[in-house]
Amino acid sequence: MSRKVSDSTVRRLSHYLRILEKLERQAVATLSSEELARSADTTAAQVRKDLSLFGSFGKRGLGYPVTDLKRHLRAILGLGKPWRVALVGAGRIGSALFEYGDFRRRGFNIVAVLDNDRAKVGDAWGGIPVRHISELADVVRSEGVEILILTVPSEAAQEVADVAVAAGVRGILNFAPVQLRLPEGVSIQDVNMVMELEALSFELSRDDDGLTDVAAS
Amino acid sequence: MSRKVSDSTVRRLSHYLRILEKLERQAVATLSSEELARSADTTAAQVRKDLSLFGSFGKRGLGYPVTDLKRHLRAILGLGKPWRVALVGAGRIGSALFEYGDFRRRGFNIVAVLDNDRAKVGDAWGGIPVRHISELADVVRSEGVEILILTVPSEAAQEVADVAVAAGVRGILNFAPVQLRLPEGVSIQDVNMVMELEALSFELSRDDDGLTDVAAS
Repeated sequence: MSRKVSDSTVRRLSHYLRILEKLERQAVATLSSEELARSADTTAAQVRKDLSLFGSFGKRGLGYPVTDLKRHLRAILGLGKPWRVALVGAGRIGSALFEYGDFRRRGFNIVAVLDNDRAKVGDAWGGIPVRHISELADVVRSEGVEILILTVPSEAAQEVADVAVAAGVRGILNFAPVQLRLPEGVSIQDVNMVMELEALSFELSRDDDGLTDVAAS
Repeated sequence: MSRKVSDSTVRRLSHYLRILEKLERQAVATLSSEELARSADTTAAQVRKDLSLFGSFGKRGLGYPVTDLKRHLRAILGLGKPWRVALVGAGRIGSALFEYGDFRRRGFNIVAVLDNDRAKVGDAWGGIPVRHISELADVVRSEGVEILILTVPSEAAQEVADVAVAAGVRGILNFAPVQLRLPEGVSIQDVNMVMELEALSFELSRDDDGLTDVAAS
């Protein structure tokens, strides 16, 4: 089993990649860990530590070559190849995600859309026909779907995930506010808007009442 | 300054709260750290460590009283009072979030909606009139807005955030794929769908190629 890399490390790698892409567009050739840290709102030590997990990049005193490090980060983040993605749940969130151009620019290609509402089946989303959820296993196999974006109601999420995983899906971006049970080897990222707001209210409450002290005691 | 509580700890606290609420509805009176850990897909040691950050709960051998611990967790997460929230960006994601009933059930009340599109201004969203972005500072002050949900394009996000913060906003749930610079004391949660997918592709790539070894070396 591989060593666990923390979610926040992966998130920082994504940030670094964005910064490097921007610099490359500006034709910047090299940058120091201090410069990268400043752009990413972290410390140079953190940058060096994050990158050292994946090998040895850059030369002391010379900094990192922008294009080279960008290429490495893309490979580390698994962006060296396009991913085949199915969107399950053709509702409001689903359609907002579908129209989100950044997915495709990053190589996440939505190749199938499914819903349980027969009224939606047969609609075309950007040339992709909406198919009935009962076809999920077939679609996963025939389209070679690797990643599922799940925007179905909580009650349906586990069953949909089970069918998709049995058919070969290996990663799920889950918007249903429910904790899915998945077999070893299947990756999941939960996007739970209420929890994001709870994380904010947690921070805000610590700032303005006695919880700060309780937390630090 | 208060001790930093990690994002993953806060996320687990949110999970624990959901589990306790469910148990309370099922009239369960007490549960052990082992039971809570099992439901939350973590270890009993982790549960005890997380909770110990905020005081001493439960009695050895007796477990945690469900209702009591639920109440504590709600207070820790800042859910003891309702929050006044403004939604800026009345587009597709904005409307999906607005209709998301779980926000209100948790005490996050969207009291204002703003957009820069004059064609949308004057529409009523669930009884709340959409107002023009130029009124943002006024709205924050008159409505006592504490939290902003930001679903505007990247180019506009920093300026909107600056105006809102100057007018009194203390927390931002940011959907714009850009790193906002905010003064000390303002909390931010970034929701970046592409980064979520990158975290998945990172995991999936580690499973199926040599990166696992590189990462562990």
